Amino acid sequence: MGKLEDIVSLCKRRGFVFQGSEVYGGMAGTWDFGPLGVILKRKIMDEWWKYFVEEREDIYGVDAAILMNSRTWVASGHTATFADPLVECKECKNRFRADKIAEGISESVTTEEFLKTHTKCPICGKENWGPIRKFNMMFSTHVGAVLPEDVSENPELAEKGVAYLRPETAQGIFVNYKNVVDTIYPDLPFGIAQQGKAFRNEISPRDFILRDRECSQMEIEYFVRAESWEENFEKMRKAQHDFLENVMGLSAEKIHELEVPAEGRAHYSKRTIDFMFDYPNGEEELMGLAYRTDFDLSNIQRESGKSMEYRDKITGETFIPHVIEPSVGVERLFLAVLANAYYEDEVNGEKRVVLKLPENLAPYRFCVSPLLKNKPELVEKAKDVYQILRKKYGNVTWDDAGNIGKRYRKQDEIGTFECVVVDFDTLNDETVTVRNRDTTKQTRVKISEL
Amino acid sequence: MGKLEDIVSLCKRRGFVFQGSEVYGGMAGTWDFGPLGVILKRKIMDEWWKYFVEEREDIYGVDAAILMNSRTWVASGHTATFADPLVECKECKNRFRADKIAEGISESVTTEEFLKTHTKCPICGKENWGPIRKFNMMFSTHVGAVLPEDVSENPELAEKGVAYLRPETAQGIFVNYKNVVDTIYPDLPFGIAQQGKAFRNEISPRDFILRDRECSQMEIEYFVRAESWEENFEKMRKAQHDFLENVMGLSAEKIHELEVPAEGRAHYSKRTIDFMFDYPNGEEELMGLAYRTDFDLSNIQRESGKSMEYRDKITGETFIPHVIEPSVGVERLFLAVLANAYYEDEVNGEKRVVLKLPENLAPYRFCVSPLLKNKPELVEKAKDVYQILRKKYGNVTWDDAGNIGKRYRKQDEIGTFECVVVDFDTLNDETVTVRNRDTTKQTRVKISEL
Repeated sequence: MGKLEDIVSLCKRRGFVFQGSEVYGGMAGTWDFGPLGVILKRKIMDEWWKYFVEEREDIYGVDAAILMNSRTWVASGHTATFADPLVECKECKNRFRADKIAEGISESVTTEEFLKTHTKCPICGKENWGPIRKFNMMFSTHVGAVLPEDVSENPELAEKGVAYLRPETAQGIFVNYKNVVDTIYPDLPFGIAQQGKAFRNEISPRDFILRDRECSQMEIEYFVRAESWEENFEKMRKAQHDFLENVMGLSAEKIHELEVPAEGRAHYSKRTIDFMFDYPNGEEELMGLAYRTDFDLSNIQRESGKSMEYRDKITGETFIPHVIEPSVGVERLFLAVLANAYYEDEVNGEKRVVLKLPENLAPYRFCVSPLLKNKPELVEKAKDVYQILRKKYGNVTWDDAGNIGKRYRKQDEIGTFECVVVDFDTLNDETVTVRNRDTTKQTRVKISEL
Repeated sequence: MGKLEDIVSLCKRRGFVFQGSEVYGGMAGTWDFGPLGVILKRKIMDEWWKYFVEEREDIYGVDAAILMNSRTWVASGHTATFADPLVECKECKNRFRADKIAEGISESVTTEEFLKTHTKCPICGKENWGPIRKFNMMFSTHVGAVLPEDVSENPELAEKGVAYLRPETAQGIFVNYKNVVDTIYPDLPFGIAQQGKAFRNEISPRDFILRDRECSQMEIEYFVRAESWEENFEKMRKAQHDFLENVMGLSAEKIHELEVPAEGRAHYSKRTIDFMFDYPNGEEELMGLAYRTDFDLSNIQRESGKSMEYRDKITGETFIPHVIEPSVGVERLFLAVLANAYYEDEVNGEKRVVLKLPENLAPYRFCVSPLLKNKPELVEKAKDVYQILRKKYGNVTWDDAGNIGKRYRKQDEIGTFECVVVDFDTLNDETVTVRNRDTTKQTRVKISEL
């Protein structure tokens, strides 16, 4: 595993991830995926969808809007409680999340408790703090035809049409629970899955794509009978491990389960396991698995006045199902996959950076090259091989820049699984050199057997 | 083609599309995709990505953040000009887009011109209008740690950290143009593609998913030498038709090219073709193809102070490339695909609704059923066939509700390509009935030959 700055540098150099709006000096907490990053991100998201939705018979998809009716966030508790403790240094006027700059305090820290920690300002080094204030992390906007001059005349209009960018995709699932039940008639247990953007106005975005203001989430709300939650929690837990280790290729020894104690859990959860990962900067949350009870559906039922009850098809019994929620941020998983695959070694006395991505996630299965760029017969033959492999595999790239050694280094850095080189022998015997990324071993293979 | 209300009703009944936040009375202009809608939406987006990115060698992907630095929208002209003419009825206080309620006026209508049209209020029928005001359609929000009480004390802070939800995905591509050039070193012409959400605060969202406040766009900025724009425009135009007709399966006779006259084009465009589609409520824009000149890259260069020039690898010549932009809204394409596939006919004297979706877009390739639900030997055999087909095709569904006739009707409505029924003969000769959706013809086929 490399250092975080090595991975950030590789991401920028090779077109995986760029700072958002970089050309204008950036936009803190946003990141743009470049050509290779999009390939990897799509593969990660598609593999998740295949594993948890397409290959299962009990999980259905939804794709809900980012802008939701504000009552959603009243019911979910976000309006009241989705806030971080904000503190301002009176000397330099910089603002911080109190629980991130002081040791041993929680998100619910009071001004008094914070002052007792005698924390110094991370920017100016002084110790002169304002009070702790609650900063709600939801981004708000206004929907509908209200103009700034209307608000000047009538300040109450500022509240009219307020909407929030969803801070989690989960509520987009819960508000559609009844729609799914009424159109699909699923048997319990069943799940609803969603992939999509979520937004959090982090006070101090940091750690590359780990703590950003705009992220993509992949969540499942798995609806079960209250009495079977433990059994289903256990099954989901196993499925998470299987996915992370056998589909994403993460080393099992880098994944640690953290049983979150009651005081650390969200207010709605009766049990939560954080799947922690050994990131370059230390252990950080990669994925969550929470037992949310019937908290969300009950709240929606109360707030909307509409029944969220499930009716058993055989017994006719009605009840509000309980929920198991596996949840993962795409960017966190993306960074885990990269960090897990990043190696530096030495080949022929030279330092080499290599991304040992599993075959299903490698941006390219093959890179095809002519040994020499200035020999038209080699280039032509290599183009033929390239087209044959493209038809067969799809994700095949072409490289004729620099010499073969340089091409290998570049393809190693982006994780291309194998390099195929066409040389003069190819013209006689229809064989090519196939060079493996991980072992750097070269073998001679017939084109027809690739 | 059905009426719009028939399609809306089918979408809700079968779980394609629901009103956003419906459980809370809805959120105007937002829509949620249900289980079947997600399948179709993903297929449409994946086919586009395959056609324009994966199967081509000259187009690369990016995936940029929705929240962008505000200077983006100054440079692009959206801050100044992305506005609709808003007019308020002084009687009933309802607000409208002036150019949508009056005949023969444009978006740049003045108060005087509007009053001359003697339009009556569509709600109360009176004619007592306020002035035309410009309503900017970008949604704004605040990024960073500013609290409401800070703004009360210091109103200037209201402007601090203002950001907009991107009103188009195009600028997410343009701000990354230089990043792509510097990491991929592409030869001209080359393109950058993006799929993602865009947001417009429509004064009056309407026509189901055609004019919504939150939509998904699929855009390509195709960079060319100024002198070759016409040739590349023509190639892109052909590719659009090929995609719409041969991949999306839309009837060629429902697609009409509209050469947009100079006064109707966006300020940056020297030529625009709108691809219009015969929607149930009449002809509407489905897709756009615009020659944007070097407008955007030149603006970014001016606003950012950074060179957007491309350097020819052989001649060393430097210049700002020109741009051809094919652009399509996913929801518009989704509705075109549904409307194109929607038929009502009569089978055995009964009215039938059927979605004649092309095979590559049908949510399910097969539906497997046992002839009778209460015969365990049939159910067991049908489950075997179901699992065989799932392994082979993936998108296969199971249905044992009601009688066979009802199942056929339901599968026809959602566009399932073929229904496979296991009956008593199957147990003897390993054949099943395969019933075609479009012809309703039934044939006897060996399981191994499915």
